[in-house]
Amino acid sequence: MTRIGVWLVGARGSVATTAVLGALAVRAGAAERTGCVTERPEFAAADLPGLGDLVFGGHDVAGTHLAKSAEPLARSGVVPPHLPVAFAEELDAVDRGIRGGVEPRPEGFARCHVDRLERDLREFAEREAVERVVVVDLSSTEPPPAQTAELAEPDLLEAALDAGTARVPASSAYAYAALRAGCSFVEFTPNAGPRPPALAALAQELGLPWAGSDGKTGETLVKSVLAPMFAARALRVRSWSSTNLLGGGDGATLADPDSNSNKTASKARGLEHLLGHPVDGPLHIDYVPDLGDTKTAWDHVSFEGFLGARMSLQFTWSGYDSALAAPLVLDLARLAAHAHRAGRVGVVPELGFFFKDPAGSDAHGLMEQWRALTDWCSEPAHGPAEGDERR
Amino acid sequence: MTRIGVWLVGARGSVATTAVLGALAVRAGAAERTGCVTERPEFAAADLPGLGDLVFGGHDVAGTHLAKSAEPLARSGVVPPHLPVAFAEELDAVDRGIRGGVEPRPEGFARCHVDRLERDLREFAEREAVERVVVVDLSSTEPPPAQTAELAEPDLLEAALDAGTARVPASSAYAYAALRAGCSFVEFTPNAGPRPPALAALAQELGLPWAGSDGKTGETLVKSVLAPMFAARALRVRSWSSTNLLGGGDGATLADPDSNSNKTASKARGLEHLLGHPVDGPLHIDYVPDLGDTKTAWDHVSFEGFLGARMSLQFTWSGYDSALAAPLVLDLARLAAHAHRAGRVGVVPELGFFFKDPAGSDAHGLMEQWRALTDWCSEPAHGPAEGDERR
Amino acid sequence: MTRIGVWLVGARGSVATTAVLGALAVRAGAAERTGCVTERPEFAAADLPGLGDLVFGGHDVAGTHLAKSAEPLARSGVVPPHLPVAFAEELDAVDRGIRGGVEPRPEGFARCHVDRLERDLREFAEREAVERVVVVDLSSTEPPPAQTAELAEPDLLEAALDAGTARVPASSAYAYAALRAGCSFVEFTPNAGPRPPALAALAQELGLPWAGSDGKTGETLVKSVLAPMFAARALRVRSWSSTNLLGGGDGATLADPDSNSNKTASKARGLEHLLGHPVDGPLHIDYVPDLGDTKTAWDHVSFEGFLGARMSLQFTWSGYDSALAAPLVLDLARLAAHAHRAGRVGVVPELGFFFKDPAGSDAHGLMEQWRALTDWCSEPAHGPAEGDERR
Amino acid sequence: MTRIGVWLVGARGSVATTAVLGALAVRAGAAERTGCVTERPEFAAADLPGLGDLVFGGHDVAGTHLAKSAEPLARSGVVPPHLPVAFAEELDAVDRGIRGGVEPRPEGFARCHVDRLERDLREFAEREAVERVVVVDLSSTEPPPAQTAELAEPDLLEAALDAGTARVPASSAYAYAALRAGCSFVEFTPNAGPRPPALAALAQELGLPWAGSDGKTGETLVKSVLAPMFAARALRVRSWSSTNLLGGGDGATLADPDSNSNKTASKARGLEHLLGHPVDGPLHIDYVPDLGDTKTAWDHVSFEGFLGARMSLQFTWSGYDSALAAPLVLDLARLAAHAHRAGRVGVVPELGFFFKDPAGSDAHGLMEQWRALTDWCSEPAHGPAEGDERR
Repeated sequence: MTRIGVWLVGARGSVATTAVLGALAVRAGAAERTGCVTERPEFAAADLPGLGDLVFGGHDVAGTHLAKSAEPLARSGVVPPHLPVAFAEELDAVDRGIRGGVEPRPEGFARCHVDRLERDLREFAEREAVERVVVVDLSSTEPPPAQTAELAEPDLLEAALDAGTARVPASSAYAYAALRAGCSFVEFTPNAGPRPPALAALAQELGLPWAGSDGKTGETLVKSVLAPMFAARALRVRSWSSTNLLGGGDGATLADPDSNSNKTASKARGLEHLLGHPVDGPLHIDYVPDLGDTKTAWDHVSFEGFLGARMSLQFTWSGYDSALAAPLVLDLARLAAHAHRAGRVGVVPELGFFFKDPAGSDAHGLMEQWRALTDWCSEPAHGPAEGDERR
Repeated sequence: MTRIGVWLVGARGSVATTAVLGALAVRAGAAERTGCVTERPEFAAADLPGLGDLVFGGHDVAGTHLAKSAEPLARSGVVPPHLPVAFAEELDAVDRGIRGGVEPRPEGFARCHVDRLERDLREFAEREAVERVVVVDLSSTEPPPAQTAELAEPDLLEAALDAGTARVPASSAYAYAALRAGCSFVEFTPNAGPRPPALAALAQELGLPWAGSDGKTGETLVKSVLAPMFAARALRVRSWSSTNLLGGGDGATLADPDSNSNKTASKARGLEHLLGHPVDGPLHIDYVPDLGDTKTAWDHVSFEGFLGARMSLQFTWSGYDSALAAPLVLDLARLAAHAHRAGRVGVVPELGFFFKDPAGSDAHGLMEQWRALTDWCSEPAHGPAEGDERR
Repeated sequence: MTRIGVWLVGARGSVATTAVLGALAVRAGAAERTGCVTERPEFAAADLPGLGDLVFGGHDVAGTHLAKSAEPLARSGVVPPHLPVAFAEELDAVDRGIRGGVEPRPEGFARCHVDRLERDLREFAEREAVERVVVVDLSSTEPPPAQTAELAEPDLLEAALDAGTARVPASSAYAYAALRAGCSFVEFTPNAGPRPPALAALAQELGLPWAGSDGKTGETLVKSVLAPMFAARALRVRSWSSTNLLGGGDGATLADPDSNSNKTASKARGLEHLLGHPVDGPLHIDYVPDLGDTKTAWDHVSFEGFLGARMSLQFTWSGYDSALAAPLVLDLARLAAHAHRAGRVGVVPELGFFFKDPAGSDAHGLMEQWRALTDWCSEPAHGPAEGDERR
Repeated sequence: MTRIGVWLVGARGSVATTAVLGALAVRAGAAERTGCVTERPEFAAADLPGLGDLVFGGHDVAGTHLAKSAEPLARSGVVPPHLPVAFAEELDAVDRGIRGGVEPRPEGFARCHVDRLERDLREFAEREAVERVVVVDLSSTEPPPAQTAELAEPDLLEAALDAGTARVPASSAYAYAALRAGCSFVEFTPNAGPRPPALAALAQELGLPWAGSDGKTGETLVKSVLAPMFAARALRVRSWSSTNLLGGGDGATLADPDSNSNKTASKARGLEHLLGHPVDGPLHIDYVPDLGDTKTAWDHVSFEGFLGARMSLQFTWSGYDSALAAPLVLDLARLAAHAHRAGRVGVVPELGFFFKDPAGSDAHGLMEQWRALTDWCSEPAHGPAEGDERR
C-alpha cells in the first residue's frame, strides 16, 4: 500500500493534535468519519489515498508533548476523553517525529535555516518510506508581510537567502523548504506561505501543486451560502456585521491587532466577492479566554426587499474550531497528494471549497466551489507515472 | 407590445395587493426592482415579458377594495406610505376587474361553478386583449384534501362536476377553470390546486404548463442553503427545530390546525430531502396577531462534527411576508408565460427554485435549483408561433 | 453537629443524582459552591444547616443505581467525569438507602400505600439520627389532577384512604406521607403535591411548613427579571413567544400533552402576573432527544414604546437543567429545615424566589422575591427549642 | 397652572425632536403615554408637573428646522408619519425659540461665551413665564475631557473664564451657564457636564439639584436586570461580550474612537459594579449608517453553574434609540423640577434609575434603583415655599 506523508507546520497545536488523534482513531475504528468531506460518495471515483495511509510528522516551535496538547481538548469536549488515553502510544510515536520549527526573523532568513527545514522533510520521507509528502501550514497567524523585493522575484529571494537577509515570513520559509524537498503545500492559515510571487514561481518551476488559504471552518462557511442566497433572490444586503468570539490559541494570537488585520481582511474579501458590491458593517475577532476552543460568531445582516422593505437575518454559530478544522486538514492532505500524483502544477483552484481566501479562484460561493471540487474529483484519475515525471 | 394577463386568486389579499401595487410603481419608475429575480442578468437572454406588459385581474371571496387592503401594509412598513395614494387611480382600475371567488363546498362543486370561473377568465383575456393569461393562486391555505376518486381520475372529475358532487378543494376548482380557459397555472400556496392526478392529466391533455407549490419566501429559503452546507461538509445534523411566528391573514388561517398540518408537512418534506435522512425536531407555525405582516422565524440546528463534537447553529429571520412573496409572484407570472409561449406542457420543474415543495423535482437545494432555472432561461427562446400552436 | 435528612422523591433522576453527587463533592472540597444561593453573604446570619450536615435518602420507582444515573450526566458535561468515580462509595451508600416509590393509581390510593411511605421516612430519620427531615419532590411531571372531593376536604381524604379509593396524584400521596411523618415538604415540580386544600389543611393541622412549586431554573428565571424591566419602564409588551427544547427525562414526560399542559400553565401564570395583563404568544415545550440534559429556550418579545414605536427583544438560554436545579434543591432543603426549626407552619411564601408558580405569594418578579427571601433570612434565627415545640 | 421650562441642549437632534413632538402629541390626546415612567401609579402621590405644563426651548449648533429633523424619524418608524404634519405649527413655535449653541473650544472658553448662554436661559424663563427651568443635555458625545485645573477648582474655573482660557468641554460650559441662571441640570449623555468637581461645587453653592449621566435606554437596561439575576442565583459570569450596532447621529459621533472610549467606559463600569467583580469580554459600539435610528445589540454571556457546568445566555435587543430616550427626557424634566421645587441641592442619586453611570450612587441594579426612585416619589411632596427657602 502506498503511504502518504503529512507534515504539519504547527504540529503541536490544537488543530494538528485533533487531526492526528482523529486519524488514529478513525483508522482503528474507534471514531466515525463525520466531518470528512472526502468520505462522501462524490469522491469515491477519485481513488484518493486512504485515511489509513497517512503518516504524520511536523515542525513546531513549541515542545509540549502531543498527549499534553490533547488534554484541554478532551476537557472542553472537542475530543472524547478516552481517546488520548487509548492512543497514547501512537501519539508518542508521532510526537517523536516532530522537529523544531523556525521563529520569525525580522532581520531575515539565511540559507542554513531553510536547508535545515528541507533536510527534516527529506529525512521524514525516507524514514517513513512514503510515496510523497504534503506539507500543511497550521501555524499561528502572522502579521501581513512587508512587500519586500525577495518576495516578488525568485532570483532576489535566492540571493537574499545566500546573504542571510531574506525578509520573508516564517510561513514562506516553510513553503520554500517544502517545495525544495519536492512536497506539495497547503496553506491552511491566512499566512502568506506559498502565495507571494517568488514562491508561486518556485512551485511552477519545480512542478509542484499548492493550495490555500485560510481554512473556511465556521462563520465564513455560513456566509458563503447565505450571501449567494441573497444574491440569487435579488435581495439587497445593506449591512453585514460580524462578531467572532474565540478563546483558543488562535484567539490569543489574534488579540495582536496586526495579525487580526490579516485575518479580517481575508474574511472581508470573500463577502464583497459574493455579493458583487462592498458592504457596510464591522467585522470583529475578539479573544475571550474563557471560551477556550469554542468559537461563537454572531452575524447580523440587514437587507432590503421589494419596494424598499427593510428586513434582517441574524445567526449565531457555536462550534469547536479544532473539530471543524481537523477533518479538513485530512481532506486537504489526501486531495493535495491526489493533485501531486496527477501531475498538477501550481495553484489548484478546485480546492477553493476549503478556504476563506481561495488562491487561483474568484468563486466564493460554497455551492459553486463544491461543484468545481466534485467535478474535478469525478474525472478518471491520472496515473502516478505521469505525476512522477513532473516531480 | 404583447400584453400578458396575470389573474390572481385571492386578489385582495396582502401578497396580491403588494404585487399589483409594486408592479404599478416599478413600471412608473417610482420604485426599484429589488427582490425581482427575473431582473438579474442571468435572465436577459430569455426575453421574458416585461413587468410593464403585465395586466392584472383576479378572483376573491372578499370585497375589500385594493386601496383599503394596502392601508395596513403601508402602516406596517411593507409598502411606502405614499405609494397607495400615488397609484389610487390605477389600483381602482384593477379593483374593478376583480370578480367574486368561490367558497369551499364540502358537498361538492357543480359544473356551473367552474364554468363561471372560466367565463371570468375568458372575458378578462378578451377585454384586456392579452396574448395569454397566467393564473396564480394566492388564496388562503386549505386543509389537506380528502383523497376522493374525482381528484384521481379525469373522467370521474368530469362526471362529478356534471352531478354537482365534485369534492375537490376550491384551489383545484380554480385550476380546473384556468386550464379550461387555456391559462397556465402557478400554485403559490401549499394548496392542492393543479397537483392531484385528475388536474395534472387535464393540463397535459390541454397542452398547458403549470408550476408549484408553496412559495419559498423565508425560513425555508434559508434552510435550503444551510442544509446543503451541512451535507457538503459531511457534518451530521442531529436535530433541526423551527418556530415561525406570524400575524398576517395567513397566520390566522394557519391557527386552524388542519391548514397548519398542510403547511408544516410541506416544510418538513424539504428538509429530509436536503439532508438525505429524517431529522428530529419540532416545527411550529404560530399565529401572533400583534406581529402583523412580519414573519419571525427561529431555527436551532444541533449538529455533530469530527470525533463526535457537538455544535450548533441558530438563526432568526425577520421579514415581511408580502414583501418577500410579491416579487416572486411577478417573476412566476413572467416565467409561466415564457414556458407557455415556448410550448412547455405539464409541470415545469425548473421553477422549483421558487417553491418549498417543488412539483416535478426532487431538488430542494437552492443553488441546485438556481442552476436548473438559469440553465433553462439561458437557452434561446422558442418563438411565440410554436407556443401558440399548442395553445 | 445536627444532621438534617433530605429525602428525595425521584431519587434516581438526573436532578437528584446531581444534587447528591454535588453535595458529596462540595463537602469533600472537590467542587465549588457555585449556584448555591444560600452560600451568599445575605444568608450568613440565618445560621442555616450546613451542606455537610445533609444526609440523603429517597423514593424512586426506578431501580437504576445512582452511579449509573451519573454516567450520562458525566458524558454530556453536567458533572465532571471524574466525580462519579471519586465518590463511587458514597453514592453507593446513598443508593442503598433509596426505597421503592409508588406508581400513579387511577383507581385510588389505599391507607396501606401511604403508610408504607411514611414508615420509610420514619425509619430513615431514626437510622440516620437526624434532627428533622425535608422531603423534596423531584418526580416526573404529572397530568393536572382531577378535582376530586378527597383533594378538597381532609376528612374525605382520610375516608377515601380507608376505603382504598383516594383519587389523588402520586405527588400528593408522597406529601401526605411526609406530613404524617412530621417532615416539611418542598414541591419542586409542577405537580400538585401539598397544594390541594386537603393537603394544605393537613400541614396546618400538623404544624409543618411547606413550599412550592415548579423550580425556576431557566427560561422563566430570565422572564422574571425581564418582565419587571418592561413594566418599570412603562413599555407595553405586545407578545411574548417562547420555545423550549429539551431532551432529558423530563422532556420525554412532557411529550405527553397532558403533563405538558400542567407545565405550560404554570409558566404562563407567572408572565401575566408580572406584566399586569394577559399577553399573546405561544409557549412550546418540545422534546428533542438529541439535546440530552441541555435545555435551549428562545423567547421573542415584541413591545411598544413612545409614540407607538415597535421594538423587540429576543434571547436564547442554553443551560443544563440538572446543573441549574440541583443547587436549588440543596438550598431549599436547608431553608425548609430552617423554617421548620423556626416553627413556621403552612406555606412559606418567602421561598417563592425559587419557583415558577410560588405558593402563597403573588410576587413573581425575581428581585421582589429576592428581597422577601433575604429579609426573612436576615432576621435573628429562632432557636430550635421553639421550633421543636411545634413539631 | 405652573409652567415648567425644559431647555434642551442639542434641541434639533433626534432625541430632542422626538421628545418635543411626543409631548405635543400626548398633550393633544394624539398619542399615548407608553414609555413614560412617571405616568405609572407609583408616581401619582408626588404631584409632578404635568406633561402639558412643559414648555420647550434649547440650544443647538445646527440650524435644521425641527420639522426637517422629524422627517427621517417618520420615515424609519420612530414617530408616526402623520404627527409632524399635524403639529407643524407647534413645532415651528418651538423651533423659533431655539438659540445657537457653542462649539468646543480647545483654546478655552471665555466669560462672554457662558454669559451669552446664561442670558438665553434667562430670556426664555422670562418670556415663557415659567416657574423654573430644567436644562437637559442631549448633545453629541464628547471625548473624555483633559483633567484641567479649572475643572477641579471653582475659583480656578472663574479665573480661567475671565482670562478666556477655560479648557472645559462644551457640556460643562452649558452646565455652568444653566446653574448661573438658576436652572437644575440633567446630563443625559456620557459627557462631563456638571460632574467635574468645579461644577458640582457650583451647584452646591447655588443650591441647585442635578442628575446624570448617560441615559440607560437599551442594552445596558437589559444588563441591569440580567446581571443581578446571575448574582442572586450565585451563578458565576465568566465573560460578557457586547456588540452594539447603531446608525443614527450618535453612531457617527461614536465612530470617533475618542468619544467611543467615553461611552464604552461608562457601560463597562456598570457591569463590574453589578457582578461584584471585573469580567472579561469585548464591548463594541459600531456605526452602521444603514441602520438609521435602530439600535441592535447582541450580548453573549458565558456563565458557570453547579459543579462547573458551562452555560450561556445571549440576547438581541432591537430598538429605536430616540423612541427609548425621548420619554425618559420628559420623565427627567418632571423629576428634576420636582427635586428643585422640593429644595434638593446637589446630585440626586434617586434618579440613578435612568442612567448608565448614575452620579451619586453605587446602585446599578435596575430593581434596586426602581425602589430608590419610587420610595422618594412616594414621600409627601415638599411645597415650593420650603424648597425656595433652601435655595
